[in-house]
Amino acid sequence: MNNVHKFSIPEIIFGRGSLSYTGLCARQLGGEKVFLVSDRGLEDAGWVRRVIEILEREKLRWIYYSDISSNPRDYQTHAGAKYYLEEEADVIIALGGGSPMDAAKGIALVASNGGRIQDYEGANRIHRPLPPMVFIPSTAGSGSDISQFSIITDVERQVKMSIISRTLVPNISIIDPLVLQTKSEELIIAAAVDALCHAIESFVSKIASPFTELQSMQAIQLIMKNIRSAIDTHSLESLEQLSIASTAAGMAFSNAGLGAEHALAHSLGGMFDTLHGLVHPILLPHVMRYNLPACTEKIAAIGEVFLGKRLKTDRETAVAGIEKIEAFCHSFGVPVHLEDVVQNRSQLPELAKMAANDVCLLTNPRQASWEDLMHICEEAW
Amino acid sequence: MNNVHKFSIPEIIFGRGSLSYTGLCARQLGGEKVFLVSDRGLEDAGWVRRVIEILEREKLRWIYYSDISSNPRDYQTHAGAKYYLEEEADVIIALGGGSPMDAAKGIALVASNGGRIQDYEGANRIHRPLPPMVFIPSTAGSGSDISQFSIITDVERQVKMSIISRTLVPNISIIDPLVLQTKSEELIIAAAVDALCHAIESFVSKIASPFTELQSMQAIQLIMKNIRSAIDTHSLESLEQLSIASTAAGMAFSNAGLGAEHALAHSLGGMFDTLHGLVHPILLPHVMRYNLPACTEKIAAIGEVFLGKRLKTDRETAVAGIEKIEAFCHSFGVPVHLEDVVQNRSQLPELAKMAANDVCLLTNPRQASWEDLMHICEEAW
Repeated sequence: MNNVHKFSIPEIIFGRGSLSYTGLCARQLGGEKVFLVSDRGLEDAGWVRRVIEILEREKLRWIYYSDISSNPRDYQTHAGAKYYLEEEADVIIALGGGSPMDAAKGIALVASNGGRIQDYEGANRIHRPLPPMVFIPSTAGSGSDISQFSIITDVERQVKMSIISRTLVPNISIIDPLVLQTKSEELIIAAAVDALCHAIESFVSKIASPFTELQSMQAIQLIMKNIRSAIDTHSLESLEQLSIASTAAGMAFSNAGLGAEHALAHSLGGMFDTLHGLVHPILLPHVMRYNLPACTEKIAAIGEVFLGKRLKTDRETAVAGIEKIEAFCHSFGVPVHLEDVVQNRSQLPELAKMAANDVCLLTNPRQASWEDLMHICEEAW
Repeated sequence: MNNVHKFSIPEIIFGRGSLSYTGLCARQLGGEKVFLVSDRGLEDAGWVRRVIEILEREKLRWIYYSDISSNPRDYQTHAGAKYYLEEEADVIIALGGGSPMDAAKGIALVASNGGRIQDYEGANRIHRPLPPMVFIPSTAGSGSDISQFSIITDVERQVKMSIISRTLVPNISIIDPLVLQTKSEELIIAAAVDALCHAIESFVSKIASPFTELQSMQAIQLIMKNIRSAIDTHSLESLEQLSIASTAAGMAFSNAGLGAEHALAHSLGGMFDTLHGLVHPILLPHVMRYNLPACTEKIAAIGEVFLGKRLKTDRETAVAGIEKIEAFCHSFGVPVHLEDVVQNRSQLPELAKMAANDVCLLTNPRQASWEDLMHICEEAW
């Protein structure tokens, strides 16, 4: 039954000032003692204090957990779940980029389903319901507030595990573009390029549907149109457009899955703790070239957005489009060679083998063995 | 806080053959004894029997309720709710066009919240949760399987009541294009024009958001492109495209609301029991002309889709677009004058006054008094 597609997203509350609905949302979901997850950066920017004020205005009790790193670790979710249970908290609120949000999902999962986070690696392995979750993204990139994905690092194996389940979709996503304004240029780029990859990989995914394709295309168009001015001006208008794009990309990849690029990106993050958003400019064009024979028409449609026109054939449009995307990624002044993030070329086979086991590879439009992935890495070196 | 928008939709299972997931979905929602709502047309086409087979395969018990008319009545929801409670049913499954689906929502509402359906007329007046609902649309039009709307006729007052609440969004919408194949030409037209109106009214709505605008535009494009071949060929491909369009339009209007056209259409249905889908060709162009000064740019964007190009100014594009839509509606050989469905011109003031009280009018882009609505009716006469 290959023709059947699922499309599922959280309730979305979007707009400038929407943060102030946080308390009300937690209340509606039965909250009395909220478990708030965030990080140091958002404390410093004043947003954690602001959320706590909003919760207190709603007469909610709260506890706060921030013991989370970028590329969140298994033991951090275990410690968080223990704290959640000891404190008898109820609604989980995450405020942050992908790391606090993914960690909050891991905490919700372990607290409600028991065991270790490793027990749930892969797709559809969660059987008991999770506590209610309200997520507030602080970057326009990860889409974790929309998606059924949580990516947690298994420290011992040095693997970024993909945990995918409908129950990991938060109940409510509160997207307030005002929260994006305190982000650094590097974080804006990393997040937007992450969203672009979500959009492109979901668009060409083997299980893309008309519903996800629409969202992927919307995201690609908005990112291309607004990323430059978002970086140059930090204008609220362009940041808002990027957050619409990131949300659209989240709707797409959550339901259509990702591909070889994210499989490799997860492996890089697991082995070298690389900032997730910054590995995409290195890998994306090479993965697109690899996928080209399997989905020329779709890559041509993406190419048309970047080129502003169609060339004579789909293939020409696709090839020129990939070149344009490569130049686009290079224009941000971020690393563009794999050797900038991998310590030693001899580590490539291990990297490729790990990526070959990533669940994201299942929806890649062209089948890829570890040798194929190895070849992509060599091209990207 | 005018900038804050909500976007909420059910879980969607879409595709040829997706009907077979009905039993599994009911099970997942805790079903043991299902309350199935449908109508005579779908019995005759064999779909009711098919759904019952699917439920039995999943070892679900079921009861069946079909005592529903087009433009479903208040007393039909009361009788249904009584039956539901007496039989101690749980999950409510609706299979049908707008009437069985809206009636099923009314039954779910009265069964769980008590009182009379009239008690909930208007927006956000439902306070207790509803039973789980799985909806299977059999037409590509009403969007009731996606939306937070239920339209029920108050027989005594001869009013079609709009009942709007987040809790009226079904848990799961199963959209199987195969189910559309048994529909008559008249029903295909009526449904597609209804979806077109949902898309256009939500696009120009005062509370449209980037998320709803994207869906509105997608629906407009797909309907324009596919309705002719759907009517002429009944091909599965074009019916499938119309059902994607209707779903997109449902996502849009559920979250952005409708406008003056639907306010008038509800009054017509309440007073004369007119088939809902067939009043739009009469009213839509005239309402668009009335709204033009308030949203010229947006109507121009719609016009561009129908014209395939932009004219010199937004106004010209909008005006020519409305003419094209008028011709498009006329091409289906359906009534296009109000006198074809209203018995007596002297009834227009009553019609306009009733429409002025419809909650759909609140999101119309241009304010309209009953005299304005009366004027629109005279134009449409």
